Amino acid sequence: MNKKEILEKANYYNEYFKDYSYILEVFSFDHETVAPINSTNEANKAMSRVSNDLFKVLKSDDYINYVIEAYNHKDEFDIEYQRKFELQYREYEKSKNITPELDYEMSLTISTASSMWKKAKEKNDYSLFEPHLKKIVELKRKEISLRDKKFDTPYDSLLDDYESGNNERILDKFFEDIKNGIVPLLKRIVNSKKKIREDFLTYNVPIWKQEKLSNWILNFNDFDLNSGVISTTEHPFTCFPSEHDTRITTHYHENDYLSNIFSVAHEGGHAIFGQNEPHKFFTVGMEESMTSAMHETISRFYENIIGRNRNYLLHLYNKTNEVCGDTFKDVSFDEFYEGVNIVRPSLIRTEADELTYCLHILIRYELEKGLINGTIDTKDLNVLWNKKYKEYLGIEPKGDKDGILQDMHWGGGLFGYFPSYALGNAYGAMILNRMKKDLDFDETLKEGNLKAIKEWLKNNVFNIAGLNDPNEWIKKITGKEFSTKEYIEYLSQKYEKIYQI
Amino acid sequence: MNKKEILEKANYYNEYFKDYSYILEVFSFDHETVAPINSTNEANKAMSRVSNDLFKVLKSDDYINYVIEAYNHKDEFDIEYQRKFELQYREYEKSKNITPELDYEMSLTISTASSMWKKAKEKNDYSLFEPHLKKIVELKRKEISLRDKKFDTPYDSLLDDYESGNNERILDKFFEDIKNGIVPLLKRIVNSKKKIREDFLTYNVPIWKQEKLSNWILNFNDFDLNSGVISTTEHPFTCFPSEHDTRITTHYHENDYLSNIFSVAHEGGHAIFGQNEPHKFFTVGMEESMTSAMHETISRFYENIIGRNRNYLLHLYNKTNEVCGDTFKDVSFDEFYEGVNIVRPSLIRTEADELTYCLHILIRYELEKGLINGTIDTKDLNVLWNKKYKEYLGIEPKGDKDGILQDMHWGGGLFGYFPSYALGNAYGAMILNRMKKDLDFDETLKEGNLKAIKEWLKNNVFNIAGLNDPNEWIKKITGKEFSTKEYIEYLSQKYEKIYQI
Repeated sequence: MNKKEILEKANYYNEYFKDYSYILEVFSFDHETVAPINSTNEANKAMSRVSNDLFKVLKSDDYINYVIEAYNHKDEFDIEYQRKFELQYREYEKSKNITPELDYEMSLTISTASSMWKKAKEKNDYSLFEPHLKKIVELKRKEISLRDKKFDTPYDSLLDDYESGNNERILDKFFEDIKNGIVPLLKRIVNSKKKIREDFLTYNVPIWKQEKLSNWILNFNDFDLNSGVISTTEHPFTCFPSEHDTRITTHYHENDYLSNIFSVAHEGGHAIFGQNEPHKFFTVGMEESMTSAMHETISRFYENIIGRNRNYLLHLYNKTNEVCGDTFKDVSFDEFYEGVNIVRPSLIRTEADELTYCLHILIRYELEKGLINGTIDTKDLNVLWNKKYKEYLGIEPKGDKDGILQDMHWGGGLFGYFPSYALGNAYGAMILNRMKKDLDFDETLKEGNLKAIKEWLKNNVFNIAGLNDPNEWIKKITGKEFSTKEYIEYLSQKYEKIYQI
Repeated sequence: MNKKEILEKANYYNEYFKDYSYILEVFSFDHETVAPINSTNEANKAMSRVSNDLFKVLKSDDYINYVIEAYNHKDEFDIEYQRKFELQYREYEKSKNITPELDYEMSLTISTASSMWKKAKEKNDYSLFEPHLKKIVELKRKEISLRDKKFDTPYDSLLDDYESGNNERILDKFFEDIKNGIVPLLKRIVNSKKKIREDFLTYNVPIWKQEKLSNWILNFNDFDLNSGVISTTEHPFTCFPSEHDTRITTHYHENDYLSNIFSVAHEGGHAIFGQNEPHKFFTVGMEESMTSAMHETISRFYENIIGRNRNYLLHLYNKTNEVCGDTFKDVSFDEFYEGVNIVRPSLIRTEADELTYCLHILIRYELEKGLINGTIDTKDLNVLWNKKYKEYLGIEPKGDKDGILQDMHWGGGLFGYFPSYALGNAYGAMILNRMKKDLDFDETLKEGNLKAIKEWLKNNVFNIAGLNDPNEWIKKITGKEFSTKEYIEYLSQKYEKIYQI
């Protein structure tokens, strides 16, 4: 194929997959948010069919021929196409031994497991979910065994899916550094004399008021609601159906209004990233080329580095009082700031404070590594889960709902994803320091100029995300090799001040 | 092909189309209800692609061969498959000269026109919509000219799409009877001395209270919300994505709470029909084989014959007072009943009272007949529209929003559909009389036993709808030939009593 032919094929397939995956993603979003409960089986069947039909296209001679030709000629193209051709070739290599039948089985298993996860969580009973999880783990291991490219361990193969360039060796060290940095700090905090007021954290805020705050945050953070949607699910998520359609969900608890606030800030961060990629990435079809860790960098940046910053919280404090009337009138801003940043070892990852969060990830990392490498059985998983919570956080779930069943990831076939959250925290601290060279971060937040922050991220972070593997990316942004050092410093400085230690 | 081969193909294609049209229908519903405004172009593009890909399957040799073989062997199958094979052969015949290119052009034109209709309505400006409508009319006329089967007029060809067996000759007579029945009655009402209280019809009811009433009505009418969804759009509609997923939308106006009530009753009627078809219809793939008039029979039955019945309204009156507290405390039940049934010539079809409703349809019938037969130009349509409202109803729209732009049908490519609404009213009155032979209608409503009514409809009306053309259907249900007589009698008896004339 010559350059022109390759370009034609690239455009054809890009538009083709874009349209179908758009429809499929919206259908899936609908299923999570509004579809009636009795439609689950037929919805899963329909999604599996369409996914499988798309998979068959990926397996067609025409497509494979294009992928190989494009890869071989990639040097003739500009940088975006080069990356696109590189990534799609990696995907092709990875899945070339996966048959449509195995793909169909996987996608049907996943959709059934996701539904069962929901039911099991409602019933607080892991045993309802366990057989489905077992099946997913088996299929994942089968999938890995079919790959040409061999890694030191099966789990490494999945890590490569999400964060190319990382592996167990690197991550074992990373989590070791995290543990060594956080655990002593946590101990000092727990032993400190500082009393942080927390009664108001459970003040009642009716859902319709919380909805107002959700919209306010999205607008304040410069998310474009004309190109986005916010809806409700038990477990919040973000999806990116198309260039002008980026969606987040949140959840509402009347007696924990901050849960919604930080869910919206987090998912809104993903969504702002999605809305502010270069247009060229969409025309080339590489709009989803950034890794999960890159994405979590931004979502955690908006949730914590911005969202729990003192100057940012001043705006939230004022808005909360405006929306909630007298509800929080006995709470001073200092109390509000400290309460939002209180450190309390807890059971639910998504509700965890900024400091202990990575310990939740550590637990998942150890468990999924064992599952995929075959050293842990799904049968014992809830017991093991609870044991590790006891060990690392000093607390234990009362039931599976607050333990093993809290996250939807594994039921959705996502193994190797969790480390991305922790990596994202560490990347975020490095990006913050780099950003501070160009703009006065605290002052910008004080002014409420979130647009300036978004623009900086757009021009320095979003613009090159899809073009690089994660460790290259962070080096290009900051000029430094990746390490946990700046993250631990960031945490220490912040919490030493709050807890006066 | 032998019987077994035909059956295999039938099942394959049934499941195939079921899955894809499910996904497509949900996507379209999402687009009407929650999708962000800026996604319109890309959503239209994606929908057009998928529709067009499905159209190509309908055009494939394999599918066409199956359709012809199935039709030729239909006598070997049971009655559901016979009907299915008959109907799909009719469809094939009708579209066999339509190229995928023309189909794509039509579907893209329609989705663009639907979006422009929305914008034009917002801006109250028909001229924004007119060029798109013009294009649709041209494409429709082109489509008709390509059909093998010839009718007396182009419009007859479209009437046959919706209500096979009907044509201009029959409908001209039908509307003549309607006019002759309703206009003198309306005159007597307008001249009567009866004063009906109407101030409370515009009492303010906050939307969250109206939402409660929406859910109450759906439950009370025995709609299954575990297999259905209610959402909000400006122009209410019903759709049937899958066997256990039937969806309606409604709209809320704070100062016209009955508008929502009767929208929900109407769309809920469609939805109850959809939820209570025989399961076999779904397995055979003939779940959407009933005609529009059959559908409107049921939706108008729930909206008017049930929904505006004195005994039914007693329940609504009580529930309204329960939900709204003191709002309606100065309104007696007699005043409520009469107010709900007040006759007032008005501009908006969907808000029209039961008596004048068919005059709105008459206007649309005359206009679309002219458009499709080439005797009326889209350029003059808003002027003509207003003229006819003046002539038949004695009132005139102030702007296009309340006139020509109120209905989404034409922008969605639906011509020949409107008469179905009027036919449905007349069918409904005949069904009511037949039902009364088996159960005490008024007493059943008094007891609030809507389940009994639904069951009767299920066993006598829904069960044979898809199997028959409309006039056969009504004859099988009632044992009588279709006429407007019972409908005019029903209206006369009801309104003579209310207006004491």
